[in-house]
Amino acid sequence: MSTSSRKPLHLNAFLMSTGHHEASWRLPESNPHANTDVEHYRELARIAERGTFDSVFFADSPALFGDVGRRPSGSLEPTVLLTAIAAATERIGLIATASTTYNDPYNLARRFASVDHVSGGRAGWNVVTTASVDAARNFGLEELPSHRDRYARAAEFLEVARRLWDSWDDDAALADKEGGVWADASRVHRVDHAGEYFRVQGPLNVPRSPQGHPVLVQAGSSEDGKTLASEYAEAVFTAQQTLADAQAFYADLKARVARAGRDPEAVKILPGIVPVLGATEAEARAREEQLDQLIVPEYAREQLARTLRVAPDDLPLDRELPADLPDEDEIEGAKSRYTLIVTLARRERLTVRQLIGRLGGGRGHRTFSGTPEQVADALAEWHAKGAADGFNVMPAVLPSGLSEFVDHVVPILRRRGLFRTEYTGTTLRHHYGLDRPVSSFARDHDRTHQLDLLGA
Amino acid sequence: MSTSSRKPLHLNAFLMSTGHHEASWRLPESNPHANTDVEHYRELARIAERGTFDSVFFADSPALFGDVGRRPSGSLEPTVLLTAIAAATERIGLIATASTTYNDPYNLARRFASVDHVSGGRAGWNVVTTASVDAARNFGLEELPSHRDRYARAAEFLEVARRLWDSWDDDAALADKEGGVWADASRVHRVDHAGEYFRVQGPLNVPRSPQGHPVLVQAGSSEDGKTLASEYAEAVFTAQQTLADAQAFYADLKARVARAGRDPEAVKILPGIVPVLGATEAEARAREEQLDQLIVPEYAREQLARTLRVAPDDLPLDRELPADLPDEDEIEGAKSRYTLIVTLARRERLTVRQLIGRLGGGRGHRTFSGTPEQVADALAEWHAKGAADGFNVMPAVLPSGLSEFVDHVVPILRRRGLFRTEYTGTTLRHHYGLDRPVSSFARDHDRTHQLDLLGA
Repeated sequence: MSTSSRKPLHLNAFLMSTGHHEASWRLPESNPHANTDVEHYRELARIAERGTFDSVFFADSPALFGDVGRRPSGSLEPTVLLTAIAAATERIGLIATASTTYNDPYNLARRFASVDHVSGGRAGWNVVTTASVDAARNFGLEELPSHRDRYARAAEFLEVARRLWDSWDDDAALADKEGGVWADASRVHRVDHAGEYFRVQGPLNVPRSPQGHPVLVQAGSSEDGKTLASEYAEAVFTAQQTLADAQAFYADLKARVARAGRDPEAVKILPGIVPVLGATEAEARAREEQLDQLIVPEYAREQLARTLRVAPDDLPLDRELPADLPDEDEIEGAKSRYTLIVTLARRERLTVRQLIGRLGGGRGHRTFSGTPEQVADALAEWHAKGAADGFNVMPAVLPSGLSEFVDHVVPILRRRGLFRTEYTGTTLRHHYGLDRPVSSFARDHDRTHQLDLLGA
Repeated sequence: MSTSSRKPLHLNAFLMSTGHHEASWRLPESNPHANTDVEHYRELARIAERGTFDSVFFADSPALFGDVGRRPSGSLEPTVLLTAIAAATERIGLIATASTTYNDPYNLARRFASVDHVSGGRAGWNVVTTASVDAARNFGLEELPSHRDRYARAAEFLEVARRLWDSWDDDAALADKEGGVWADASRVHRVDHAGEYFRVQGPLNVPRSPQGHPVLVQAGSSEDGKTLASEYAEAVFTAQQTLADAQAFYADLKARVARAGRDPEAVKILPGIVPVLGATEAEARAREEQLDQLIVPEYAREQLARTLRVAPDDLPLDRELPADLPDEDEIEGAKSRYTLIVTLARRERLTVRQLIGRLGGGRGHRTFSGTPEQVADALAEWHAKGAADGFNVMPAVLPSGLSEFVDHVVPILRRRGLFRTEYTGTTLRHHYGLDRPVSSFARDHDRTHQLDLLGA
């Protein structure tokens, strides 16, 4: 057994209405209004917590995405959703996506700190820059800001957010009833940030939260995305189709983290996987096929055409992708997603119809059909071979796909000593093995104090 | 009995950490960390629900307010807090404050729609424009935008928000599994708003919520505030010290609502009241005095000096206010609050110390000490005499002040037939007796359809 396989494996449940397969809502078992049903999400989180998952996670974009005919569309705002789930669970981490392009740091930092307070230290934020022109047009812009511009703003946004989270010292609130002093004003700091994108005075209007900072997650795999991840992320969600690609991504990102002066162990890399389970391999494949047959190809083709920047008519269903597609450099949207789709189609010489099937299951994430043993083997292999610190589990159908995973795959991983049998802590940082950040104001103070001692 | 007294009376519980009295946190019974303790707020909401209150309510500002030494400071983001409370209650309405000056309509409309979904139709939004230069400086501005500018933005913000809430027809989601059509795209509308402050494409990324629109609440009593209320508000929170003032405000606002072409009954006016209860009048007064003696006057004087735009030294504690204070016209901040304080001090010839005591109890709201009978009489009188449709109840100490009100005042109001004995509906609109708004897109459609029939 290699060294890496002795490290604990991490599991995050990526939740999405009736499941990640775009046709999952059409199954007889599915609640087609699950997308706005908070009880559905509470049930999912309780299932994941029964499986001692590290966390649950929600994607998000501040725009209505794609064709509403195709699949359940529109969703509850994720920090609201996390809060609703917090009350129904006790230990599991709670990660929501929010855009740095279409939020203000003051409001968003406060919202995540509030979720962290309400959940007793279980909040995580998946930081995205939102590659959607429809989103831009919901916020007064005509066009998408450039990729570079979005990432520059994201980096400054995170600097401001971390400073705001630190603006109250952990021991600021004295609660001195006798002396009539609630908090020590010298332990609550203005941040006085003045940068290219933001000017923020501070302090934040909520005391420092249980985790200090919510866990920072990142999911873009472009050059800019990887740079942001190496400097700020504590967990990275990524889409990788092959072991070799996943190993290369893993090695590259860990090296970047080290070059940024951070401990590579302090960043967990979690590729997505769409498991389709069956008692036999044949049963699993039949389930996957049943789902693929429920896809309405016209919807999917329109979406694919938008991503590839071509007309739907340029994508006949039973032909391969056209040869002359734009380079990634020309894409200002979701660069890494674009490259992943084109690479997958070219490598496996997929027709448009076949590509749509593959994307319909997991939108570019790795789909794996098989028995619980086979799925556990697949996860263990990537984990052992330096391709993953854990996985972003994306059930094709919800809730059934999640409860099957918890009931049949998790016990195998536990028996092999790869996954926890119970929670040993109460915060998301604890589950992921991450330290609680020391306040940057405390570091400033120590530095000043040291200079004082040196007589400087 | 007058006609108005036969109308039902409405009660909202205005919740604030350990209570509205600024020294409440210093009492032995108080949890000084209540401001970030979600269980504290869940308990308060359950008490209010036991008392069949219409709603609970939280004030808010996107800045840290005042001196952190003075009282519990910093608070959970209110939509997060409402969501946490929603899970612990079943019927009571949930109202949060949010600023139109420091939010984007797309994000905020979605957040309130999400709270409405999660709570099954119990959400309300107290629309504020935020009179705080500290808030401005958390959002890239050097100075507070002008009063007029803030209110113009608020009106446009509400137009956009209402249009976004209507952007999904109620019947848009078909969930047609057989036909493979989740929603009818023709029933999901872009809003294509292009105004002075906002350009928003839409549609919203969440289906229409149970109430159609969250209930809109407004609390500014300046000219601009009353104009906004007359056009948009469905409930108005106001600070009134005397019956005559409250009657004048009530008559004026109802007349403005009528002039704006709306039904005056569709706007509920709820003055604030800080009840301090005792088994006898003397006991109640002793309690109030005990609290006032815990005020640290230096904190309060600094706050008062900021509000009045003078130096703290210009306010000797045992003298009346200086004669030469600015006119309301010169105030760009909270105009109506400024006028209320100056009027109160001049009318009752209060010293600064006495004024601080009065403001420390309820920040300009009416404080009323007495037995439960006396408090019930006071409420019934204002209700009967055309001064109030109900009250914004602001307990001086929490939770005890709220449970005493529920256990001792509410039963009296019920016996007199003034207040409900049980909830008869599940939404905040139902509790307040407000209609569910018809979608503006449906109205557009009906108009077009009528023109078609006329051959136009």
